[in-house]
Amino acid sequence: MNKEIIGKQSIKFNNPPAILSSASIVGQMEGEGPLSSYFDQIEQDPTFGQDSWELGESEMVRRAVQTAITKSGLTKEDIRYIFGGDLLGQLIGTTFGVKDFDIPVFGLYGACSTCGESLSLAAMTVAAGYAKNVIAVTSSHYGSAEKQFRFPLEYGNQRPLSATWTVTGSGAFIVSATSKEQPMNQYPHITSITTGKIVDYGVRDSMNMGACMAPAAADVIFQALEDLECKPDDFDKIITGDLGKVGSEILIKLLKDNKIDISKQHMDCGVKIFDCEAQDTHSGGSGCGCSAVTLAGYILQNINSKKWHKILFVPTGALLSTVSYNEGQTIPGTAHAVVIEQI
Amino acid sequence: MNKEIIGKQSIKFNNPPAILSSASIVGQMEGEGPLSSYFDQIEQDPTFGQDSWELGESEMVRRAVQTAITKSGLTKEDIRYIFGGDLLGQLIGTTFGVKDFDIPVFGLYGACSTCGESLSLAAMTVAAGYAKNVIAVTSSHYGSAEKQFRFPLEYGNQRPLSATWTVTGSGAFIVSATSKEQPMNQYPHITSITTGKIVDYGVRDSMNMGACMAPAAADVIFQALEDLECKPDDFDKIITGDLGKVGSEILIKLLKDNKIDISKQHMDCGVKIFDCEAQDTHSGGSGCGCSAVTLAGYILQNINSKKWHKILFVPTGALLSTVSYNEGQTIPGTAHAVVIEQI
Repeated sequence: MNKEIIGKQSIKFNNPPAILSSASIVGQMEGEGPLSSYFDQIEQDPTFGQDSWELGESEMVRRAVQTAITKSGLTKEDIRYIFGGDLLGQLIGTTFGVKDFDIPVFGLYGACSTCGESLSLAAMTVAAGYAKNVIAVTSSHYGSAEKQFRFPLEYGNQRPLSATWTVTGSGAFIVSATSKEQPMNQYPHITSITTGKIVDYGVRDSMNMGACMAPAAADVIFQALEDLECKPDDFDKIITGDLGKVGSEILIKLLKDNKIDISKQHMDCGVKIFDCEAQDTHSGGSGCGCSAVTLAGYILQNINSKKWHKILFVPTGALLSTVSYNEGQTIPGTAHAVVIEQI
Repeated sequence: MNKEIIGKQSIKFNNPPAILSSASIVGQMEGEGPLSSYFDQIEQDPTFGQDSWELGESEMVRRAVQTAITKSGLTKEDIRYIFGGDLLGQLIGTTFGVKDFDIPVFGLYGACSTCGESLSLAAMTVAAGYAKNVIAVTSSHYGSAEKQFRFPLEYGNQRPLSATWTVTGSGAFIVSATSKEQPMNQYPHITSITTGKIVDYGVRDSMNMGACMAPAAADVIFQALEDLECKPDDFDKIITGDLGKVGSEILIKLLKDNKIDISKQHMDCGVKIFDCEAQDTHSGGSGCGCSAVTLAGYILQNINSKKWHKILFVPTGALLSTVSYNEGQTIPGTAHAVVIEQI
């Protein structure tokens, strides 16, 4: 077998793809949070100039893709594939956002882990030589997600403190081929990936997504460290997607039970993106957009500035629909780990 | 660039992956249709022994994956990834169907084109050396799909003649690495793929999916023939997923307008799977499961028996949700082409 395959669930790339550019488009609330200065665009209009939350989300996706292309200096003709997904039923956020780019599309769904899934498949595709440049894009929108999963905003329903706040944001990444001749050392690289299984601890509380996802995050982080023969100290940061405060505590405890202590390195995009007390977002931010815009803005800038050299990026997803939830099913979790580093 | 990349949208594999085994699990109605003798299991209980349509769909997925593994002589530990998807919001059919296999999962959504998307990514992954064996699995279920997209069956709503009938079925495929040393000539191979764009002709009629998808099918077939430098006569069959009678006519006309005549080779899984008049399925079968079980059963057996040597398999998808439809959006289509042949 190819020597790139390592351990049970990981791939270590011989020619790690570079992240040539990234873009983050967010809503007003994210723009008022602590990461404000890292985003490419902060839009005050919650429907992004469109007629609905859903079309607003698609417009956000379109802008993210266009901004990533513009920042890279490429044109859309240089992009061979789009790997994209969002939280809405049948991926309408992505479909209507990318349809006019005239680029072949692979639609993906991994709930809020989709940013990790899209970067993984993008990196696999580029590293295998199937494309020179591809785009990975994910999004979520507070208004469309509340309507999809809980209640339309107009109902004014109350939310428990364990609930997270879906981030209105879309992050796009151009993932590009490198070679020994063209190393592109100035860009962050995706050096390995660990693909998650579906992990079901039997949690049924859709207002406590952190608890649903933490076991999956623990599982994939454990496996990544084992496959890559790494310790937590080998990373400047181990960054989960949207566990929030509640889920982060569970993650750290679960790993400690397995003799792994990530409490020094751990950061959660959902906790980072909002000032949870001042902005009243309870357990923190969530959604595919949460980890995507935090990576596109804050995280990659910290890697580009060499503050961080190597991170383990672990978007986390809760696999439910209103139908499965209302029919009494559990909420399984999944998570996909991506190592991003300066090489 | 890698010499495997050809034309605008295609990959031609240097070491084409083999389809080591396939499995098809269907419902009663499919079992009463003309392809009856080709399926692995025909289940008379519409909920497959479960409590709901959705859990029934998941049970069907589980059986398809298990049957494909059993038929291949492998164990689940030999499978590195599952590429899976279905039509339900947030892919609950797939999630609850595959979660207990303990295999890393890439969740996919391409509406009814997902079988083509999953086979494409499976073949790319295996041909690149990232895995020795992976599974591609897709499903649809008449009861869960009607509830998701139209009305719960209990309403007894009327359906126009252009409407299709969602197939209750799940098809799973084990896609395995080959090499010059291990050619596995006794199995059908995936020799190339052409990944579709999103094509939007502005059709808004959710009861006429064929018309929504036909332009996307025409687009990807045109591009596949151009990229692969092939003529329709180079294929024994050009097989679309679920255009039905109405969409098939549009496809043939659209390609004729571009000076390509596929009328001799064309077959549509949706037309083939039911005796539309006797079974009252109107325009034909549809759903991710339609093309998947027709491939797993009928098509691969015709390739294995050498009746057909080379086919172009083109699952077709209509990209809508009830939300996008009710908000007045168009229904764009997509389609992914996969060349399967004896080599």
